[in-house]
Amino acid sequence: MCKVLDKINTPKDLKALSRKELVQLCGEIRQQMILRLSVTGGHVGSNLSVIEATVALHYVFDSPVDKIIFDVSHQCYTHKLLTGRKAAYTDPARFSTVSGFTNPAESGHDIFSIGHTSTAVSLACGMAKGRDVKEESHNVIALVGDGALSGGEAFEGLNNASVLGSNIILIINDNDMSIAENHGGFYQNLRLLRETDGKADCNLFRALGFDYFFVRDGNDFNEIADMLELVKDTNHPVVVHMCTVKGKGYRFAEADRENWHYMGPFDIDTGKRRQEAVPAETYEALTAAYLADKMRMDSAVTAITAGTPKVLGFEEELRNQFPKQFVDVGIAEGHAVAMISGIAKAGGKPVFGVSSSFLQRAYDQLSSDLALNQSPAVILVFFAGISGGSQTHMGIFDMALAANIPGIIYLAPTCKEEYFSMLEWGLNQTEYPVIIRVPGIETVSRDAALLSEYSYPAKYEIAEHGTMVAILALGKFFELGKSVREKLDAEYGIRATLINPRYASAVDEVMLNALPEYGHRLVVTLEDGVIDGGFGEKISRFYGTSPMKVLSFGAGKEFVNHVAADEQYFRYRLTPEQIVSDILKEISEHFRNNF
Amino acid sequence: MCKVLDKINTPKDLKALSRKELVQLCGEIRQQMILRLSVTGGHVGSNLSVIEATVALHYVFDSPVDKIIFDVSHQCYTHKLLTGRKAAYTDPARFSTVSGFTNPAESGHDIFSIGHTSTAVSLACGMAKGRDVKEESHNVIALVGDGALSGGEAFEGLNNASVLGSNIILIINDNDMSIAENHGGFYQNLRLLRETDGKADCNLFRALGFDYFFVRDGNDFNEIADMLELVKDTNHPVVVHMCTVKGKGYRFAEADRENWHYMGPFDIDTGKRRQEAVPAETYEALTAAYLADKMRMDSAVTAITAGTPKVLGFEEELRNQFPKQFVDVGIAEGHAVAMISGIAKAGGKPVFGVSSSFLQRAYDQLSSDLALNQSPAVILVFFAGISGGSQTHMGIFDMALAANIPGIIYLAPTCKEEYFSMLEWGLNQTEYPVIIRVPGIETVSRDAALLSEYSYPAKYEIAEHGTMVAILALGKFFELGKSVREKLDAEYGIRATLINPRYASAVDEVMLNALPEYGHRLVVTLEDGVIDGGFGEKISRFYGTSPMKVLSFGAGKEFVNHVAADEQYFRYRLTPEQIVSDILKEISEHFRNNF
Repeated sequence: MCKVLDKINTPKDLKALSRKELVQLCGEIRQQMILRLSVTGGHVGSNLSVIEATVALHYVFDSPVDKIIFDVSHQCYTHKLLTGRKAAYTDPARFSTVSGFTNPAESGHDIFSIGHTSTAVSLACGMAKGRDVKEESHNVIALVGDGALSGGEAFEGLNNASVLGSNIILIINDNDMSIAENHGGFYQNLRLLRETDGKADCNLFRALGFDYFFVRDGNDFNEIADMLELVKDTNHPVVVHMCTVKGKGYRFAEADRENWHYMGPFDIDTGKRRQEAVPAETYEALTAAYLADKMRMDSAVTAITAGTPKVLGFEEELRNQFPKQFVDVGIAEGHAVAMISGIAKAGGKPVFGVSSSFLQRAYDQLSSDLALNQSPAVILVFFAGISGGSQTHMGIFDMALAANIPGIIYLAPTCKEEYFSMLEWGLNQTEYPVIIRVPGIETVSRDAALLSEYSYPAKYEIAEHGTMVAILALGKFFELGKSVREKLDAEYGIRATLINPRYASAVDEVMLNALPEYGHRLVVTLEDGVIDGGFGEKISRFYGTSPMKVLSFGAGKEFVNHVAADEQYFRYRLTPEQIVSDILKEISEHFRNNF
Repeated sequence: MCKVLDKINTPKDLKALSRKELVQLCGEIRQQMILRLSVTGGHVGSNLSVIEATVALHYVFDSPVDKIIFDVSHQCYTHKLLTGRKAAYTDPARFSTVSGFTNPAESGHDIFSIGHTSTAVSLACGMAKGRDVKEESHNVIALVGDGALSGGEAFEGLNNASVLGSNIILIINDNDMSIAENHGGFYQNLRLLRETDGKADCNLFRALGFDYFFVRDGNDFNEIADMLELVKDTNHPVVVHMCTVKGKGYRFAEADRENWHYMGPFDIDTGKRRQEAVPAETYEALTAAYLADKMRMDSAVTAITAGTPKVLGFEEELRNQFPKQFVDVGIAEGHAVAMISGIAKAGGKPVFGVSSSFLQRAYDQLSSDLALNQSPAVILVFFAGISGGSQTHMGIFDMALAANIPGIIYLAPTCKEEYFSMLEWGLNQTEYPVIIRVPGIETVSRDAALLSEYSYPAKYEIAEHGTMVAILALGKFFELGKSVREKLDAEYGIRATLINPRYASAVDEVMLNALPEYGHRLVVTLEDGVIDGGFGEKISRFYGTSPMKVLSFGAGKEFVNHVAADEQYFRYRLTPEQIVSDILKEISEHFRNNF
């Protein structure tokens, strides 16, 4: 039983509470949150750090008239709990009724669907400008983690917010951590400010023109609430620099802040992650081992991450082994891509590992800094493809956005042997920017035909010879192509040709031209990405004026929020049964028309 | 005759000169530069401001062993002149032998091909890191204009450069101007530093961790040369904050710095731009007039630019009329897109005007901040399509990158009537992020079939009825489609159907399905953009399993540097003659096969 929490259903209910009850409420929320996270997993560290601040925000301000915008929004759990969605945090049967990010579809208190870092200041600037031109007068508040401040968009936002000339309140939640430790000179200034209680003369926020306030303990409800009451209804841009403890109130999370940034279900008493089916062998771990080997042998090999070292498999211990060759630039994907272009130009061998969803934060750098300069750098794209995750972190857009940039070789290996063959070549060649799409999490092994080099012109692999139907199964979907082929053979006696295209960025004209000669009448393309602007459309265009039919399968052009991958496969007709059925339809059509 | 300049052909020649001769050299270069620019036009302001600094750089450092990287690189003229390309600035017959940007294809002294702003610090970071892992010891220097510092990538770069732990020298050329005036809080700090000779305690560069030096007059050769000698071979990150005068030494350029940022050929004595064929009516001017009208009537209408107000037609006088509703966010396209999402969410009606080449700097914001949130904002894309310009500023990628993002309606009007019809709808609707591709510079007028709304599903316009061949001529290329149709009719008696697709982001399934029924056997797509990931591929995929043939025409997937548009049209088979010839080939093939 939670004495205070039980009475709270909307932010309005907070207004009636005494300060003492509010402090108690924070404790009750914390207990409830730990309980809930132990079952569902989630962003433990950041959410525990902002409980007091979030209660204070809803106590002092009047949401949704006042607008509260959460950067990244993975720290919004208390906000959701206080804005009509309490059951999702207190009733196990309803734990899955809300997502881990703000979402206007869930509540009018959520202004934006957000998942990428560093955007809240700019969004808040827009909200404030919209308010001003409409001559309204509410508060616009952004809650921004310190880790988000390394991203360029955050700086662009700060630079503009400071000259807005009207109400905007930026709460910088300084828990001294990004996902991993923070990187960059900016954090030295944050530390100086922490150490001087915000009194240091050299103050980046003041330098930018903000009215600056310091909150020594943002986990002290009264301190943060008093501060918010002070800055409420300000008529000018304000920064509240608030220090909190990441993982506050749960000792395991406080003690190991990187690993508790995001944690799966865990045992509360021991802090041990509950048993999950952990793949025996992952591409991340193999990649880290491979790169570490290369780095030991060749000091020119450098590994770069933008705030997510574990994506590249680099745990803290491994990072420490390479103080010079492993670089974490903080959450700054644009900088990372420009930097690897520079490293490559200087004769280094850089490898940048990044999630599919975050590659798009560097489009201009991929094009201008990297591709235009033909810098021989390697980018490894992890977590690509259809998943059941948040609409804010989809992995289906990377090929359509990057494979159409001139000069980039975008490779999609089908198995670990091919992945490392491509990586080895990419690392040692000196001509091309190379992107390699890591084929999933758990490794797949097969006897792929490996090449000694993967430059242009593209050379596709015929994995299985057949006739009538040629299945071009790109990257991770090679396995799907195999299933389709087997089904066609076993159930209908159709022996299709199975092709591994290897390249997402180019067609193998020689092979495609030869397919009709070898009796193929239908080409099927399979790609684990959005079909618009993707691989299949290149094949369709190639055969635009030929009698060859082309059937393209891939993800739909839509944002999808927490829909199971299997359900999406079904929706996009990506199950072997559906694909076989569509193939049969085309074949029978063909025979009807031609015989 | 230039007494000193005549002796200079490589940076090495500078080393032998006395300080007095070096000062004289700067004067001679300035005179020569003004003479040359009066004939060719170019980036007058920034180049005149950095003559002394560039001579000093090449006098003090040892390029190309030491690496000098120019941000944007439009201020590289003196650098080019000193590095073996003097004739391009002194011999009228050879004025066109070099481009206006650094380009490794021209010289080993040019490290990168650069044209987009804010990238040099990150590139320099990479060069320095590459040097360090290879245990080399040269200097890495970036020359960065103050206007570039509003871009997020520059901040990401500064944040990382400051903790590099080794030699990197960033020269901030502070001439107190972006293309137009600077915007943002950062510039208040720059001003404070200027006004205190760099002595103010509140110093953003020191806050970031840099060793900071101030040069009061960067147009005083001795002052900047002394400073560079001081910081040369530094073992840690250094910022040299150098004040210069934009347009230094040419009174007209000093007096009107915005208009002399870039200037066409001019008369030296009067500072008057030489007569050029100015279109009677431009989309920029019409757009500015239209928006100003709307802004006067409705305070919710806001116009946003990212450092290029004139792209949107907003000259200084017009900007001053709308201190609240016209927002220049500085060179910060990402922020601009996030901000319009915020304005739209707050009920405002934002219109962001941007060049095609710079739209790509906001891919993540287009996707995450704007499209995912379905914010009803309007983006106008200017200068799109094939042009004879620099490979750094191509206008062919905007559709492939943005039209494949879910939820964005990407419209390509064919004429001014349609453009304003779409803009009017975009401004007043409340459902979609809308991008409109401005169809060129000079206006075209026609009796287009206008719609009262342009939401999905897409509805294409049949402009001319015909049979056998349907020409889908997108946006500006509608005129090309007309020419093709007329030629087919006049010379071969083929009456093709001419279709205005209106939408770059979606197909009109109803119409495409009906085309075969009306006797069409060949669909031709024309788009003024890269064909990979573009509009034509959508049509090809749509007809993938149909007997309909699809011939797609567009720009090739390549970076093209200063190749005349006509030559590119020819290269990509985009002349009416070539298109007609390709159509005829397909038609005769069709008849051969089917009759």
